[in-house]
Amino acid sequence: MSRLNSFIARLTAQRDLLDHIADENMLPARGAILEIGLGNGRTYSHLRERFANRRIIAFDRAVAAHKSSIPAAENMVLGEIAVTAAGFTGQNAAMIHADIGAGYEEADALTLTWLPDLVVSLLAPGGIAASGLPLSHSQLEALPLPPGIAPGRYFLYRSFG
Amino acid sequence: MSRLNSFIARLTAQRDLLDHIADENMLPARGAILEIGLGNGRTYSHLRERFANRRIIAFDRAVAAHKSSIPAAENMVLGEIAVTAAGFTGQNAAMIHADIGAGYEEADALTLTWLPDLVVSLLAPGGIAASGLPLSHSQLEALPLPPGIAPGRYFLYRSFG
Repeated sequence: MSRLNSFIARLTAQRDLLDHIADENMLPARGAILEIGLGNGRTYSHLRERFANRRIIAFDRAVAAHKSSIPAAENMVLGEIAVTAAGFTGQNAAMIHADIGAGYEEADALTLTWLPDLVVSLLAPGGIAASGLPLSHSQLEALPLPPGIAPGRYFLYRSFG
Repeated sequence: MSRLNSFIARLTAQRDLLDHIADENMLPARGAILEIGLGNGRTYSHLRERFANRRIIAFDRAVAAHKSSIPAAENMVLGEIAVTAAGFTGQNAAMIHADIGAGYEEADALTLTWLPDLVVSLLAPGGIAASGLPLSHSQLEALPLPPGIAPGRYFLYRSFG
């Protein structure tokens, strides 16, 4: 499969998973959504459309987003994500979306040394994590994916911490 | 429509259009394929898969591709595309793929001051151009899009120059 086909499949899985979370009202009643890795801001655009009443806070090293998808200053946190996001520990986020896989095994393995703990520390009990990388943690329960998303394309968890 | 949905639609149109060109054997018998803008190299990966017997030459300002999709040195031309690609004038390329829209009207308008002339100068008679931006030129004939690609999502031309 070409990398173009793989990319289309991954973005489609991401979109379908976020729509599933919205359609099924899976989030706790309160709490912000954290976008871990803003990038071009396309997913941020989708989150704003599907979760219009939530505060959405984005984290990235620097702003590289299209001008139409740049969060307001109070919702954009710049710096090393592993450091800056840790400052939000205990604030009980309703959901975290993280799509920060680099496409290189070694870099992704390094990310996975800190991302699962961070996600658990940020989420409210019952909070939802959608991730492009698998998150292995004793306080995260893997949830079934909606139909049409191949296993391994995207990952869905609920925190019971 | 969210920018994520718009992006999925555009990438899908791009993939379907490239597959259409391959399936219908639309290219002249000889000539290279020019990838104008390598980026992450996902489309280059697809071109290699679908046009395995063609030389594919990529142009970009700098190499930002995934390591699995970096062309051999003799097929990677670095520098300002408008300048470097002009050096290939008259070499009768069989096909050009250009997906260098910036998502900003002013930047795209600037690109369109030079891209159509460049495409015509590079293509062999009967050569094919697939582009994310519309190319208006007296020597380019717009070809019908395959079913499923909404008008305006992607553009297909044949040179009769």
